Amino acid sequence: MTDSKPSGSKTHSDVRMRGFAERTTVELALSWLDAHAQCLESESVSLAQSAGKVLAQDIVSQTDVPGFSRAMMDGYAVHAADTHGAAPYNPLALAIIGEVLPGNQFPAEVQRGQAVRIMTGAPIPQGADAVLPAEYSEAQSDRVLCHGEVATGKHVGLVGEDVARGTCILSAGRRLRPQDLGLLSSIGCQSVRVVRQPRVRIIITGNELLPPGTPPHGHRIGDANGPMLQALVNRDGGITINPGIVPDQPAEILSALRDDADIILVSGGSSVGQEDHAPSLITEHGELAIHGIAMRPSSPSGMGLLDDRLVLLLPGNPVSCLCAYDFFAGRAIRTAAGRSADWPYPFTYGRLARKLVSAIGRVDYARIAITPQGVEPLAISGASVLSSTTRADGFVIIPADSEGYAAGADVKVYHY
Amino acid sequence: MTDSKPSGSKTHSDVRMRGFAERTTVELALSWLDAHAQCLESESVSLAQSAGKVLAQDIVSQTDVPGFSRAMMDGYAVHAADTHGAAPYNPLALAIIGEVLPGNQFPAEVQRGQAVRIMTGAPIPQGADAVLPAEYSEAQSDRVLCHGEVATGKHVGLVGEDVARGTCILSAGRRLRPQDLGLLSSIGCQSVRVVRQPRVRIIITGNELLPPGTPPHGHRIGDANGPMLQALVNRDGGITINPGIVPDQPAEILSALRDDADIILVSGGSSVGQEDHAPSLITEHGELAIHGIAMRPSSPSGMGLLDDRLVLLLPGNPVSCLCAYDFFAGRAIRTAAGRSADWPYPFTYGRLARKLVSAIGRVDYARIAITPQGVEPLAISGASVLSSTTRADGFVIIPADSEGYAAGADVKVYHY
Repeated sequence: MTDSKPSGSKTHSDVRMRGFAERTTVELALSWLDAHAQCLESESVSLAQSAGKVLAQDIVSQTDVPGFSRAMMDGYAVHAADTHGAAPYNPLALAIIGEVLPGNQFPAEVQRGQAVRIMTGAPIPQGADAVLPAEYSEAQSDRVLCHGEVATGKHVGLVGEDVARGTCILSAGRRLRPQDLGLLSSIGCQSVRVVRQPRVRIIITGNELLPPGTPPHGHRIGDANGPMLQALVNRDGGITINPGIVPDQPAEILSALRDDADIILVSGGSSVGQEDHAPSLITEHGELAIHGIAMRPSSPSGMGLLDDRLVLLLPGNPVSCLCAYDFFAGRAIRTAAGRSADWPYPFTYGRLARKLVSAIGRVDYARIAITPQGVEPLAISGASVLSSTTRADGFVIIPADSEGYAAGADVKVYHY
Repeated sequence: MTDSKPSGSKTHSDVRMRGFAERTTVELALSWLDAHAQCLESESVSLAQSAGKVLAQDIVSQTDVPGFSRAMMDGYAVHAADTHGAAPYNPLALAIIGEVLPGNQFPAEVQRGQAVRIMTGAPIPQGADAVLPAEYSEAQSDRVLCHGEVATGKHVGLVGEDVARGTCILSAGRRLRPQDLGLLSSIGCQSVRVVRQPRVRIIITGNELLPPGTPPHGHRIGDANGPMLQALVNRDGGITINPGIVPDQPAEILSALRDDADIILVSGGSSVGQEDHAPSLITEHGELAIHGIAMRPSSPSGMGLLDDRLVLLLPGNPVSCLCAYDFFAGRAIRTAAGRSADWPYPFTYGRLARKLVSAIGRVDYARIAITPQGVEPLAISGASVLSSTTRADGFVIIPADSEGYAAGADVKVYHY
């Protein structure tokens, strides 16, 4: 705990209070980030664990699926030639010599004049070359009357019609869907190589913070950013390690910055004051590449490298923290996980119900609600009001070269 | 294992081969499902486990956030009246009596003529009623020169400005977002009541099936539906229990149907033949409400109740299984989990590159690819070709009253 200092001496906080000398553009910050965020190496996971993960190898099938020709209809496996000329007014009779179900092979060869009752998916018996559908047939004790013709190969699924041996069925970089798991299973895959999930160390700083779940009391507030960042990291494909509040002491923060992780997020203490240890520690022990970004909120954000690992500095104000996460940290994590770096929010276009004001030279992240009147900017008092993001349906990004949008303008809305 | 029967006797399979006597419309099947699928009861989970779950209670804050008035800018806590008339050409001096950081209370009352250096988020000291921003000030040893005026309350965040005590901050039915977890944490929530996740028993039947991960051999094929259904159930908020292949014996299937679960999915054996045990078992021991649906693929689908639990019969052909899951089973699971019953796929509109043919009286689920030429229907040979769903970018639903769409028509595309 830092004590209040009832003293008149000038402190380093004057520097902080003046803010950043200059701010990097969002565009430059993203360029630096994209140049330094890397897709991680692969690891092997079981098929059941692979859903939603990103494939790190091309999958080439070593087998045909199916490995045998099979019936595509319920009916009779026949010699097509035996049905030539068959019609309802000219039924042709074939001797039923048995039945074959999926998973079994019929034990005899079908001769001319014979038929085998067959179910969809069952292997075509030797000798037969077509399936006469049940609708064109009439069973009579031990024979079947054909009421129609079938051509050679009709209703016969060919070897490899689903997957041909040697085909690349799924390519590296694909995020695995449920049906992909089905297809992988059908070719006998027990495990696949996927991009390893990034391990993300979340460092929460701020002497005013109480651990999550603690009712706020006195002049301290509950830690909102820790639980929020954990959920965000998980959403973007990362695994959080040791999340929690770290005392605002340089040694403790440095030790946390050096935890065994792929990406480090620091919430709070990201500005330029004497309580903002992380920026100085990164400057001293690594590289603080970007510090102060021309955006609102989140201008006291930063990023750099420590021990070759990405460190993202997120402001302590929860709206700023969310915004900086979404612009920068989430992008780095998604890239590391092999996913698309793009915003993970669906978007639509909508008409502004009221004007949305920004300023040239900075990017704005404006929370909005979707109302019957259109896209309604939320009146918000500041970056500390997290409930503005829970009341919001989404947000609009106003680029740096825009002063904002007039009422009635069409805007791109990202939906939370 | 059912053996092949090289015999000429007429069997029950003739019934199956003729198919369903009549098929229920998709609309009626959905009505029955919606009348019988229910949101489950609630359970308490820790905040960290609540992301993505559906809130089962209104959350009313017992506390104000913040619980104290605080600085919204870095600067000086002052009496607003002391700044009246201050301007760059008329700087007014105040005595700096100390500094206050977030989490601390300044131990003295600020008197007229005094100022306390204050950081964003720190409690406003007693006596002060405004914050003079750092940009309007000039520190000189133990005094600060005010270069501008501030009104009473300026840059002071009020008690409860984020959350006022007694406010409902999140309502029952909301799927929790990352920022919701942050807000819940800020009011001291340690756990919340959410809709319990449905426990889904997946019963895979089919004597031709090999367990997932087994290379296909002989006339048997790898189980594609098991891994696919597990991933689908998890995506929709369910927990799978005992997934796996159940031998095609009535006693074994009945025992699996009576496993302790909220919803039962049966893959395969869903039609009307002698190997299709599940429909008869449900008819005998429960209610088979719907069997045979006017759609392609997936027409041999069904649904009913056994021991008051929903049972969904999904065809064994993997494309049909996916389609029937998406139309019916997923809907039931999402409803049970408290989520929206709607399709969980994002959609866009696109122009058909080629005509898409259907037939009046049935609903079609057509796999498509998005190409530079537009929405391209995939040429597919049948419901057994799972790779048609992995090559597809999504699907188009053709309603029962449509014969399909002409090339150039605008269609709604759901994206996998």
